[in-house]
Amino acid sequence: MTADLSQGPVCPVPLSHRETIILGHGSGGKLTHELIRTIFGKWLSNPYLDQGDDSARLPMPDGQLSISTDAHVVKPLFFPGGDIGRLAVCGTVNDVAMLGAVPLYLTASFILEEGFAISDLDKIVQSMADAAREAGITIVAGDTKVVEKGKADGVYISTTGVGVIPNSRKMQISGSAAQEGDVILISGSLGDHGIAILSARNELAFEVALESDTAPLNGMIEALLEVAPDVHVLRDPTRGGLATTLIEIANQSKVDIAINEINIPVKEPVKAACEMLGFDPLYLANEGKLIIILPENQAQRAIEALRAHPYGRETSMIGRVSSAKDGSPEVTLLTPYGSTRMLTMLAGEILPRIC
Amino acid sequence: MTADLSQGPVCPVPLSHRETIILGHGSGGKLTHELIRTIFGKWLSNPYLDQGDDSARLPMPDGQLSISTDAHVVKPLFFPGGDIGRLAVCGTVNDVAMLGAVPLYLTASFILEEGFAISDLDKIVQSMADAAREAGITIVAGDTKVVEKGKADGVYISTTGVGVIPNSRKMQISGSAAQEGDVILISGSLGDHGIAILSARNELAFEVALESDTAPLNGMIEALLEVAPDVHVLRDPTRGGLATTLIEIANQSKVDIAINEINIPVKEPVKAACEMLGFDPLYLANEGKLIIILPENQAQRAIEALRAHPYGRETSMIGRVSSAKDGSPEVTLLTPYGSTRMLTMLAGEILPRIC
Repeated sequence: MTADLSQGPVCPVPLSHRETIILGHGSGGKLTHELIRTIFGKWLSNPYLDQGDDSARLPMPDGQLSISTDAHVVKPLFFPGGDIGRLAVCGTVNDVAMLGAVPLYLTASFILEEGFAISDLDKIVQSMADAAREAGITIVAGDTKVVEKGKADGVYISTTGVGVIPNSRKMQISGSAAQEGDVILISGSLGDHGIAILSARNELAFEVALESDTAPLNGMIEALLEVAPDVHVLRDPTRGGLATTLIEIANQSKVDIAINEINIPVKEPVKAACEMLGFDPLYLANEGKLIIILPENQAQRAIEALRAHPYGRETSMIGRVSSAKDGSPEVTLLTPYGSTRMLTMLAGEILPRIC
Repeated sequence: MTADLSQGPVCPVPLSHRETIILGHGSGGKLTHELIRTIFGKWLSNPYLDQGDDSARLPMPDGQLSISTDAHVVKPLFFPGGDIGRLAVCGTVNDVAMLGAVPLYLTASFILEEGFAISDLDKIVQSMADAAREAGITIVAGDTKVVEKGKADGVYISTTGVGVIPNSRKMQISGSAAQEGDVILISGSLGDHGIAILSARNELAFEVALESDTAPLNGMIEALLEVAPDVHVLRDPTRGGLATTLIEIANQSKVDIAINEINIPVKEPVKAACEMLGFDPLYLANEGKLIIILPENQAQRAIEALRAHPYGRETSMIGRVSSAKDGSPEVTLLTPYGSTRMLTMLAGEILPRIC
């Protein structure tokens, strides 16, 4: 993803309290934003990096390029519904597609730990090939490094995706394009990936029959844009979950967002695990879900197109966009009890190495 | 870099002897090639990945894209003449430029170890910004993950570069374009990076006054192509060194290559370290050197242009290309004693985590 560096001053932040990296810096929440602003933003700020979308929009003669990168350190490497290979392809394909781009090319660089089983690597690379085929993306370059035993954890994979945003797209899809009156859709149930990973780590005291939702979403996005060409925002709620992602969008677009908990699909095993562990599904990671923000008059066709796609069967309208009341964008949740609460960004790390 | 998958059969290799990754798999030598052919090639082979150059050549409306990726795990993170940040930018810029492309965009993904000093990260990211500025490339996207203490080694950085090969380039510069009669230039002394890293690790019993040559080479390449537009091959001899890189080129182009040791520049401290440790400078890594293969009639202007550039002052003509005598390409070295020896690919790892 690219970094939104526009949110506030560069230096006077509590980073000075910390001399070392902590796990929360990789959470996708507040500490990550702080790190991006104070370190990466300070040295690297430029109009492309500052766009703040999942992928950078870059000028190109015919259409525009969409380029995105992600490191993948998920633990365990194999989990119900996927593995680090499928995740590394889908995660980046999805980021590239979030600008309405057609993903074209993918690069992959591997950091391998001495002693890692070649048979496991074999499975992982096969899985990458399968996922790339499903997404219609071509893996065009790669690199491999090996570090000593105890200096990695099996394998880490960084992928970079390059796509083209066709000139035929009328709208400039972006996290900053949400408008008053828009409605908000989610393409399916929340938290499947987060809880599936937790379960695969044997950190749950009970069995759950649950698979990660890891999937390439570009095909579903194509189907969506065919019937709803005026989509304003596309975003996949990965690390940090739906809540963090909506807060990012509200800040980028300078709007208020209100969502209704009763309309947000959450599977029973996810609900059960969350109740037991004190997690909130709104903050759990997803790897195959799509947030869509679009004008209300295209919402019905959009929902129909999404529900007709295998990855969008449970698509639901979950909220609305309104103008920011006091200049400070807010995301509020209407609970099933009729009360509302303001959503805030994840402060620390709830599930390290979720992707 | 991309993988040359065209060199031989896919399965019957001695990989079966090994159930686990060893350090040599990251050496850039024989074991790396074996791993690429048997694992990555098996699952990912496609015309782009199979090109076998430092960067993948991809169709684009105006000009062609050049895309390359590299993971960087150098140890130590800071060394005389550079750091992992400068290395991560220059390494990928150089790979992109090796097709004669103008590097445009760079992505960077970071894997950080819990407990890593933020002040060190700060220095590294600044160094990346400086190197990117020098290379004229824009860092357009990034990602950060954090792993537990003991699951990385400070920081690992994967970078991906995207460049454009202008339509005005007459030649298709590639490792497969070397021709009988071509001459071979090297832009400066060998082994500076390898020995500087070794020295920074305190693995030498003596002091060396030596800096790594880590540098972006795209500016020098532009100056070169202006006076010598018919360059056939550009390649930077990084992991595996000059010998391994020339063997790769000989195999890609199906030609013989002969080089003359007496013309190959090696600095005194590098010579001394190699003699003491039993290393061969031809196999040591370089991060700011360029191999140029071009028609003899453009060699003189090329040498003048290269020597006029700060990174090419010691440019030397080191050898020639001839037709492969028996269909099996060979690289031979003429020693100062008048004998010749055949160069073979690095079999294992001599310096782990050199880049």
